[in-house]
Amino acid sequence: MNPAVVDSILTSRSRYLDELTRFIAIPSVSALPEHAADTRACAGWLADHMTAVGLQNVRVIDTPGHPVVYGDWLNAPGAPTVLFYGHYDVQPVDPLDQWVSPPFEATVRDNELFARGATDDKGQLFVHLKALEAHLSKTGTLPINARVILEGEEEIGSPNLDQFIRDHKAELACDVVVVSDSPMFEKGVPSICYGLRGLSYFQIDLRGSTTDLHSGSFGGAVANPAFVLAQMLAQMKDRGGHVKIPGFYDDVRELTEREREEFKRLPFNEKQYRKNLGAPRLHGETGYSTLERTWARPTFEVNGLLSGFTGEGSKTVIPATAMAKISMRLVPDQDPDKIAGLFEAYVKKVAPKSVDLKVTRMHGGKPWMTGLDNPYVQAAARAIELGFNRAPVYTREGGSIPIVATFQTELNAPTVLFGLGTPDENAHAPNEKLDLDHFYGGILASAYLYEEIAKTRG
Amino acid sequence: MNPAVVDSILTSRSRYLDELTRFIAIPSVSALPEHAADTRACAGWLADHMTAVGLQNVRVIDTPGHPVVYGDWLNAPGAPTVLFYGHYDVQPVDPLDQWVSPPFEATVRDNELFARGATDDKGQLFVHLKALEAHLSKTGTLPINARVILEGEEEIGSPNLDQFIRDHKAELACDVVVVSDSPMFEKGVPSICYGLRGLSYFQIDLRGSTTDLHSGSFGGAVANPAFVLAQMLAQMKDRGGHVKIPGFYDDVRELTEREREEFKRLPFNEKQYRKNLGAPRLHGETGYSTLERTWARPTFEVNGLLSGFTGEGSKTVIPATAMAKISMRLVPDQDPDKIAGLFEAYVKKVAPKSVDLKVTRMHGGKPWMTGLDNPYVQAAARAIELGFNRAPVYTREGGSIPIVATFQTELNAPTVLFGLGTPDENAHAPNEKLDLDHFYGGILASAYLYEEIAKTRG
Repeated sequence: MNPAVVDSILTSRSRYLDELTRFIAIPSVSALPEHAADTRACAGWLADHMTAVGLQNVRVIDTPGHPVVYGDWLNAPGAPTVLFYGHYDVQPVDPLDQWVSPPFEATVRDNELFARGATDDKGQLFVHLKALEAHLSKTGTLPINARVILEGEEEIGSPNLDQFIRDHKAELACDVVVVSDSPMFEKGVPSICYGLRGLSYFQIDLRGSTTDLHSGSFGGAVANPAFVLAQMLAQMKDRGGHVKIPGFYDDVRELTEREREEFKRLPFNEKQYRKNLGAPRLHGETGYSTLERTWARPTFEVNGLLSGFTGEGSKTVIPATAMAKISMRLVPDQDPDKIAGLFEAYVKKVAPKSVDLKVTRMHGGKPWMTGLDNPYVQAAARAIELGFNRAPVYTREGGSIPIVATFQTELNAPTVLFGLGTPDENAHAPNEKLDLDHFYGGILASAYLYEEIAKTRG
Repeated sequence: MNPAVVDSILTSRSRYLDELTRFIAIPSVSALPEHAADTRACAGWLADHMTAVGLQNVRVIDTPGHPVVYGDWLNAPGAPTVLFYGHYDVQPVDPLDQWVSPPFEATVRDNELFARGATDDKGQLFVHLKALEAHLSKTGTLPINARVILEGEEEIGSPNLDQFIRDHKAELACDVVVVSDSPMFEKGVPSICYGLRGLSYFQIDLRGSTTDLHSGSFGGAVANPAFVLAQMLAQMKDRGGHVKIPGFYDDVRELTEREREEFKRLPFNEKQYRKNLGAPRLHGETGYSTLERTWARPTFEVNGLLSGFTGEGSKTVIPATAMAKISMRLVPDQDPDKIAGLFEAYVKKVAPKSVDLKVTRMHGGKPWMTGLDNPYVQAAARAIELGFNRAPVYTREGGSIPIVATFQTELNAPTVLFGLGTPDENAHAPNEKLDLDHFYGGILASAYLYEEIAKTRG
C-alpha cells in the first residue's frame, strides 16, 4: 500500500477522534419521535462529511421514515465494487442516571471512548470513511469501486431499508458488502463473524376486566391477567431452556462438529464472562455451551412486563390488563414470518378464554450465515492481519443485522462482517464504549482491505 | 323509640348530605406522603364534628402514623357498651382521568353519591355519628354506652392500630363492636356479614445481571428475570385455581352445608355480575361457586408486574430485574404470619439459583368469622328490619377489615358488620359511590340498634 496512506492514517488519530466526537454529539435516537429532527440533522452532517472525504454523488435520500445517506466512488473500471453499509441511528439512552458521562458527549477513559453510538454503529462506520479518505486524499484514487450506504433505522428494525434496496438495486450493485457493526471475539482479538441471529419481536396484551378490581371483593371470581400472563409465558420454554412452541426448531441448522471444535478452541473464560455480567449463574439450553447458546441457538426472551400497581407500597387490585414485550432470536434457517405464525398460533392456544388477548408483531429480521472459504472473507482476513498484526479468529454473533440477509437475497452479494467492537461494549445499555486501538487499527485494516479485495479479481 | 328521634332523622337528610360532602372534601389519602397534612386536617375536622354531635372526651390521639380520633358517651350505667369503629382515610384516586366527577367533590347522580370515600368509609361511619346525634340532641341521653374510634390508616393496612388498641385496652373496653365498612349483598337488600377474609401482601424482586443486557449478544447465556418471574408465579396456582404453596390450605375452615345452602338461596345473577366487571368469562377455583370463591376461599393474586422495557415500540433487552406485587386473601382459620412463612419458603424453593431473590413482607391481616346466633348479631338484625323495613340476609365478604380480628383478640368483643355499601360501589376504583337510600336508612337502623342492643341485657 502507498506509504503516504499509511502515514496519513497513523498521524491523523486526534483529528479522527475529534470528528467522531462531533458525529456522536448529534442524538440520532431513531426510536423516539422527539429525536426525529436530530436524526435528520445527523444524516445531513454525515452527507457533508462524506463529500469532504472525497466520495461522489452524495445524497440524503428520503424514506417513509428516517433517511438513507448514499455516496460512491466508481472510477476503477474492472475492479470489484464494495458496498459499505452502516447505520447512523442509535438506541435510546434510558436509564440515563446509570451513565458515568453524558451519553452524547464522547469521553475517553483508559483508551476507551464512552458514548451512545461509540461502537453501535457510529464509531465502526466511521472507520471506513476515514480509510476511504486516506486513500483518496493521498493518492486521488482507490483500488476498488466503493459505494457507501448508511441508514437511520437499524435500531428500530430497518422498516424501510428492504424496500429501499429493492428500489435502488442497480445503484447498489456490488460484488461484496462490508459491514462493521459487531464485536470482536475479545478485546485485541480481531475476528471475522460468519453468522448472525435473526429476530422476531412481539407485544402481548391481555385484558380481564373493564377496570382494576378490588382484590378482596372480586379475588377468586375472575382471571387475573398478570397471573394468566405468567402462566402463558411459563409455557413458552421448558426447564431445560428449550422453546416449546410447536415447530420452532424445525428449520434450525444444527452446529457442525467443526464449528463446535472451533468454538471450543477460542479463549473463552466463562467465569470472567459471568462476573462481567454480574449474573449469579449462567443459564441456558441444555446440551450446548455458552458460545453455542448465544451464537448458534435460537432463544425466547421476555423484554418487558407491565401490569397493575407498580409504585411503592401496596395496592390491593386485580389488574385489568397485563402486557409483555417478547422476542425470539433466530438462527439459520429459521424464517421470522414462519416463526411469527407459529408463535401467534401457540399464544392463542395457551391463552385461556377468561382474558381478551391481543398479539402485535413488532419487527423481525432473518438470520444469516456465509462460507468461511469465500474469497472476500479470506481477503478480509489478510487485511485484518496487516492492520492488527494478528490473524483473525472466526466467530458467529448472537445479535441481528437483518439487512445482511437482504443483501444476499436482493443484491446476490456476500457480506464480510468486519467487527471492531468488544464483548463488553454495552451496546443498547448505559456506558456504551469503543476501544480506541480497535478504532485506529480498524482504519488501517480497512485501508488494506481495498487492495486485498482488488487481488481477488486477477 | 322516641318519635322525636325518628322525626329528627327523617327531616335532617339534606343537612346530613351537606355535612358528609364537607367531610369528603378533605383528601385524606393515607398512602400518599403528599396528603399527610390533609389526613391530619381530616382528623381535626372529625373531632370537632364529634364534639358537636354530643360525644364527650373527644381527642385526636397521635400514633407513629396518622392519628386516631376518639370520643365517648358513658352515662348509661349498667347498659351495654358499644364501640363504633370506622376509618376516615381513603384510597388514592388514580387513574384520575376515569372519574366522571372530581373525586373530592361529592356529586349526586341518580340518588347515588359519587366521591372517593363515599362508601369506604366516610359515608358509612358518618351514619353512626348522625344516629348518635339524633338521640343525644332530642333526648339528651342514649340507651347504651358508646365509644367511637376512627382511624386514619385502614387503607394502608392499619400498621399502628393493633398497638393502639393494646395500649388503650381499658379505655376501649366494650361488649360489642359495630363496624360499617362493607357492602350489602345487593342494592336494597340489607345484610349482616358474618365473615371476612384476611390478607398477606408481598413484593418479590429478582435480579439476573448488573445492567440490562443486549438480548442478541447475551440471549441464551443468562437467566431472564422476567421469564423466571413468570415461571415462579405460574407455580403458585394450578390449572384448577388451587394454590400450590405447601400447607396453604391446612387451616382453611371448609364451608358448612348450611352455608352453601344459604349462599345458593341468595339472589345472585352470575351473568349480570360478569357483565358488570367486563370480564370475558368468570374464572376461579374448581368445585366452588362464585360466592363461595370470593367469600370463603383463599386466593393468590398478582397485584402488579414490572420488568425491562415497557414503553412504546420495541427494545431488545434482557431485563436486569423483575418485580411482582403479590397478595393472598385468607379465610378462617388461616394465619397471615404462618402463611407468610409458607409463602417465603416456597418462593425460595421455586427460585432458580440463576437469579438473586428478595422477598418483602408488605402487610397482613387476620381473617374473621362470628356466630350467626350471637345476641348482638340478632339485635342488629332486628334494628335493620326496623330501619329498612326488610329482614337482613346473612353474607360473608371477600375483603379485609383486619381490625375485626384484633377486637376479638384484644377486647374479647364480637363484631357486628353492619354494611351499607353496594356491590358495585367502586371502592378502591374510580367513581366510588354510596346509595343515598342506604345512607338514610342506615342512620335510622343505627338509631334503632341502640335500643335493640340495650334489650340484650335485661
